[in-house]
Amino acid sequence: MVITIAREVGSGGRELGMRLSQELGIAYYDYEIITEIAKRTQLSESYIRDIVERKTATSYAFTFARGQNPMVFAIHDHSTSIYKEQSQTIKEMASNGPCVIVGRCADYILREQKPFRIFIYGDIRSRMERIRKRPGEDSRLSDLMLEKRIKEIDRGRRKYYTFFTDLEWGKKENYDLCINSANIPIEKLAKVLAEYLRNLEEA
Amino acid sequence: MVITIAREVGSGGRELGMRLSQELGIAYYDYEIITEIAKRTQLSESYIRDIVERKTATSYAFTFARGQNPMVFAIHDHSTSIYKEQSQTIKEMASNGPCVIVGRCADYILREQKPFRIFIYGDIRSRMERIRKRPGEDSRLSDLMLEKRIKEIDRGRRKYYTFFTDLEWGKKENYDLCINSANIPIEKLAKVLAEYLRNLEEA
Repeated sequence: MVITIAREVGSGGRELGMRLSQELGIAYYDYEIITEIAKRTQLSESYIRDIVERKTATSYAFTFARGQNPMVFAIHDHSTSIYKEQSQTIKEMASNGPCVIVGRCADYILREQKPFRIFIYGDIRSRMERIRKRPGEDSRLSDLMLEKRIKEIDRGRRKYYTFFTDLEWGKKENYDLCINSANIPIEKLAKVLAEYLRNLEEA
Repeated sequence: MVITIAREVGSGGRELGMRLSQELGIAYYDYEIITEIAKRTQLSESYIRDIVERKTATSYAFTFARGQNPMVFAIHDHSTSIYKEQSQTIKEMASNGPCVIVGRCADYILREQKPFRIFIYGDIRSRMERIRKRPGEDSRLSDLMLEKRIKEIDRGRRKYYTFFTDLEWGKKENYDLCINSANIPIEKLAKVLAEYLRNLEEA
């Protein structure tokens, strides 16, 4: 069973992915994908991360709006070649056996293998609360700034996903199961969900 | 545990509700709600069913567009008093103990009791297929007409829900769990989901 997890920022999707893979005793891929792309493209991991996680929304807008700028062309080229390597890497990972893959358009990239596609979401309050409990820059922001930051990251994910898949990120029709994590600790959710997936496969 | 199930037509939500209540050994309410409203309002069950299941979208449109027509006023008055009785009935049912309630804006009506809110959906193909397997008028329609009919009923549910709750029907943020029933038999889903809900409550 290959499980893909897409998630709103602060919904606990990454933690869920890790715990789920532990519960099910299967592989977990997340940053490993970036490391692999870096090897293949000879670009640095931090640059790749910038491209796939932060700068994307801006770079696409720029590409279309100011297509004359050669710097913007370079970013666009890298985005496309990174996506190509990402697709290849994810396909190889999935073909190696059961695994959990977080983010990276994996649900779309693997669509022919029919992975079990999960989307995790929650209201803004619960997501702010979860981020505040994590160590890191974002947890020290004011409420207003944190909310702005969350929306900005989600907007980036949405644009990135739509750019490469032509589908709407977070639209329930594109997933098998959408889970609201607002009222449930991720540790508990992982246990219950692992059992659900085991039963689904056995039944 | 009180479980509410909202569903797209043909997604198997009603069957899921019945089977889930059996698996969990708890009460199931669906048409019982209509019977109870009939008792309380002195309106016939079939008239109530018409109002809550079919005519609603039209009647609201009429109410706003042609507010002068006294017949339309009557339907509007009945809609409102039926909704009031429905709210009361659903609250009483939920206070009697664990149960599954299908449709009827129950997720919204019971929002203060925090029920577990499920939404079932599926792509149009899978829903058409499921309807074709049921005995009844709709299963004999042409593909084109059946698709039109499905969209019409869903539109009615959406308008009814929005009219009384001011929320968007089927928007994942309004539910705890959204399940795509396209690739799974309802019988199997009911078993696996019952176990999920049991574990969620125990964990």
